[in-house]
Amino acid sequence: MARPVDVPDLVDRARLGEQRAVARLISLVEDDGPGLREVAQALAPHTGRAHVVGVTGPPGVGKSTSTSALVAALRAQDRRVGVLAVDPSSPFSGGALLGDRVRMGEHATDEGVFIRSMATRGHLGGLAWSTPQALRVLDAAGCDVVLVETVGVGQSEVEVVGLADTTVVLLAPGMGDGIQAAKAGILEVADVFVVNKADREGAAQTVRDLRHMLMLGEQPAHGGWERPVVRTVAVRGEGVADLVGALDAHRRWLDQSGERNRRRLARAAAEIQAITLEQVRARIGDLRGALGLPKLAARVVAGELDPYCAADELVAELGRD
Amino acid sequence: MARPVDVPDLVDRARLGEQRAVARLISLVEDDGPGLREVAQALAPHTGRAHVVGVTGPPGVGKSTSTSALVAALRAQDRRVGVLAVDPSSPFSGGALLGDRVRMGEHATDEGVFIRSMATRGHLGGLAWSTPQALRVLDAAGCDVVLVETVGVGQSEVEVVGLADTTVVLLAPGMGDGIQAAKAGILEVADVFVVNKADREGAAQTVRDLRHMLMLGEQPAHGGWERPVVRTVAVRGEGVADLVGALDAHRRWLDQSGERNRRRLARAAAEIQAITLEQVRARIGDLRGALGLPKLAARVVAGELDPYCAADELVAELGRD
Repeated sequence: MARPVDVPDLVDRARLGEQRAVARLISLVEDDGPGLREVAQALAPHTGRAHVVGVTGPPGVGKSTSTSALVAALRAQDRRVGVLAVDPSSPFSGGALLGDRVRMGEHATDEGVFIRSMATRGHLGGLAWSTPQALRVLDAAGCDVVLVETVGVGQSEVEVVGLADTTVVLLAPGMGDGIQAAKAGILEVADVFVVNKADREGAAQTVRDLRHMLMLGEQPAHGGWERPVVRTVAVRGEGVADLVGALDAHRRWLDQSGERNRRRLARAAAEIQAITLEQVRARIGDLRGALGLPKLAARVVAGELDPYCAADELVAELGRD
Repeated sequence: MARPVDVPDLVDRARLGEQRAVARLISLVEDDGPGLREVAQALAPHTGRAHVVGVTGPPGVGKSTSTSALVAALRAQDRRVGVLAVDPSSPFSGGALLGDRVRMGEHATDEGVFIRSMATRGHLGGLAWSTPQALRVLDAAGCDVVLVETVGVGQSEVEVVGLADTTVVLLAPGMGDGIQAAKAGILEVADVFVVNKADREGAAQTVRDLRHMLMLGEQPAHGGWERPVVRTVAVRGEGVADLVGALDAHRRWLDQSGERNRRRLARAAAEIQAITLEQVRARIGDLRGALGLPKLAARVVAGELDPYCAADELVAELGRD
């Protein structure tokens, strides 16, 4: 489509909650084209209000079902909800604003729910590069809560922390691996724990194990926030009101303690840093001749210069023009 | 070990082919510590001689067996050989200069063979960050040929091209997937094809399929080099002399056509660029306050600035001091 995009108009319509405008804006930031900067600029004044909730945990623990149950509970309170699914195995994935064929269908025609799956495009860890921008779109669109569902392996748990105000870590009974995964790093990132499938055998034990570990483990900087363990049966909606309560309590604590601001500052700094590196990379690519890169490479090949000294010269050259 | 390292002495001893000195230098470049730059500088004048051969292909195709057979054939001609195994599933991996328990053992006590497995450390694609430096160590140590074995999935095929003078792609009969993988990108990067396990049923068909594809496919810039298809049974050493012949022929073509120099220039430029980005990253980390990153982050959080404009300001600031 060569049709010129009226970004301010799109942002106005997105702020009124128009689904198509929201979808178009997210596409623009996903495309990483010339529209991205204009969208980012137009969104900036309208962001910072949404409560960003990361939902993560090992595969099979019920992340998508829990996300869907949270959407239903939040909608029952008439809150506007956004869902970003960054898990490529999630049933939400597979198409923009498509939704889960199984149970997200009930939300698909709800004007107050915005569902979007993000392509991961090989970005390390699972969180798509454009996810922070898509978050800003949903934030500007007036979402009270944005749920970011990520695949629970590798370093995506760590990345979701970089994005979320509140990180929910799901576990399930009978998943020895779940607790192992918890040991391996999930424990530290969680603000709220959920033991889902709590009607299954072993649920009480899992809750006990978790509480025990929380007591024993070295406590990271959750300064004053006692991390709750919520039991849910997400598929039947059981315990989901408790989970919403825990999320709201954490949001209040974040605001009162100043932690929300601290997290948002760290997130913004990390994002600026990532964009800066991307720009430097692009600049080296565009200006390789002007920067003398081919000459430096020739000196390295000739053995006159090692690549580290060559990089020093390139950095100096980057600063010069 | 707090013992100060005498890098020039290590380089002198490595050039004489002393195994321990070679191992120590590779450890220094792997550690990415303060010694790295000194080693890089000391090595620079002594590099550029080795023929770097990348060995890649789908899992199970016999990469390690073929690498071992190549070592034996090259040693029989009294050539000094280095092996860098970047495949984490390779039997060579698991320890510095340890070698394959199964069949690399025969080379383990050979003074003319240097075997090293590189940790991949989560670096995207499988080629360890320090691999180019380790290559320089083996080059300076007088290796005539350095074999770089990489896992045959994802983008490592593309990365090995960035490192190697000659890229060998292995396939095997009865691996429908092998040819599929070939279609998906391996075809383009290969300078020499090997159909290993050529005593198996379907070998002739695999060779025909490959030749057919080579004829039909769009030919990338191999300008004048007709890419051979060599049949081997690496486990019995059959066809390995032909493979060595193909490698030597390609090396001669590289030299005569000027392609070797072109590839080395491109490789050096890519390496300088990667180191530059790493330095910029480190500089932003070290100087975040001086560069005004926290203030920029605060303006982004306040909605006064979008992260792209903030990155512009950070880039300008990087250039300033």
